[in-house]
Amino acid sequence: MNITFTPIGTIHTPYTKKKNNTPFQSIEDDKEEFFVTVYPEHVKRLEKLDLFTYIYLIYYLDQTYKEPKDLVHPPWTKNTAVGLFASRSPNRINPIGLSVVKIKEIKENQISISGIDAFDGTPLLDIKPYIKDLDAKTDANYGWLEDAKFKDHLLLHIKGIPHDH
Amino acid sequence: MNITFTPIGTIHTPYTKKKNNTPFQSIEDDKEEFFVTVYPEHVKRLEKLDLFTYIYLIYYLDQTYKEPKDLVHPPWTKNTAVGLFASRSPNRINPIGLSVVKIKEIKENQISISGIDAFDGTPLLDIKPYIKDLDAKTDANYGWLEDAKFKDHLLLHIKGIPHDH
Repeated sequence: MNITFTPIGTIHTPYTKKKNNTPFQSIEDDKEEFFVTVYPEHVKRLEKLDLFTYIYLIYYLDQTYKEPKDLVHPPWTKNTAVGLFASRSPNRINPIGLSVVKIKEIKENQISISGIDAFDGTPLLDIKPYIKDLDAKTDANYGWLEDAKFKDHLLLHIKGIPHDH
Repeated sequence: MNITFTPIGTIHTPYTKKKNNTPFQSIEDDKEEFFVTVYPEHVKRLEKLDLFTYIYLIYYLDQTYKEPKDLVHPPWTKNTAVGLFASRSPNRINPIGLSVVKIKEIKENQISISGIDAFDGTPLLDIKPYIKDLDAKTDANYGWLEDAKFKDHLLLHIKGIPHDH
């Protein structure tokens, strides 16, 4: 079974494959500009989206393709191996990216957002509202990241907090 | 640009299109059985996934197709119209479903989960770990659901709390 999707717009970031400067997770970065544009035919479909603090962006990881592995070694984890589906590696069976981002402003077909770990030009597939009680699970955990050897460091990256390595 | 994906497994639920008994959001339902099976070639890719409390399931809404609209009228909202991308309606430009579910148990290629608002047989596209600091945004809001006319009732549905209409 083949499932076919088509982009609804584009993600714009300061990150390019050439510069290889993409962080490993979304960062709330106020110095750089991150925004999403939807194609003109979708502008009306953004109505009332600006009332949400956060949204999900679902996108096509078109610039990161490598053959997916069974196990991956997440960055900064000192030889830990975890299953591909227990990781957020971009080299997935279906290269679908998912990020929670903050809305700064919506003007016409342009949504200014907080940082996102995607290359400039990444095709956008869907936007969904992030709804407090539905999506913010306060009893969530860190899974294999609990491992004390590297958790604190990895969390700095996850939270986008600058630090010396 | 056409983007092609292929299922990695199947979502199993008590809900069928014929019975039309799917709730409007994922419900934590202990009386019914909800589980996901991945194809045998992906079993190794589940390693250490069981350490997470919650996971994201991304799936193909193959049984709910209707022509997508610009504005939708969410259930129980008394004539509110919101943009398609400000809603969780299944009739999307790209019919991609996204749910946060709790893992109960993983045995071989089968993941027992908390409730999910998907039809039995829904093709699964991806599994991602839900990571506390990355995904649980404690300052998230309710967007247009804040409207006091219907918020309390809608939240009962969102949280899966049984009630008389």
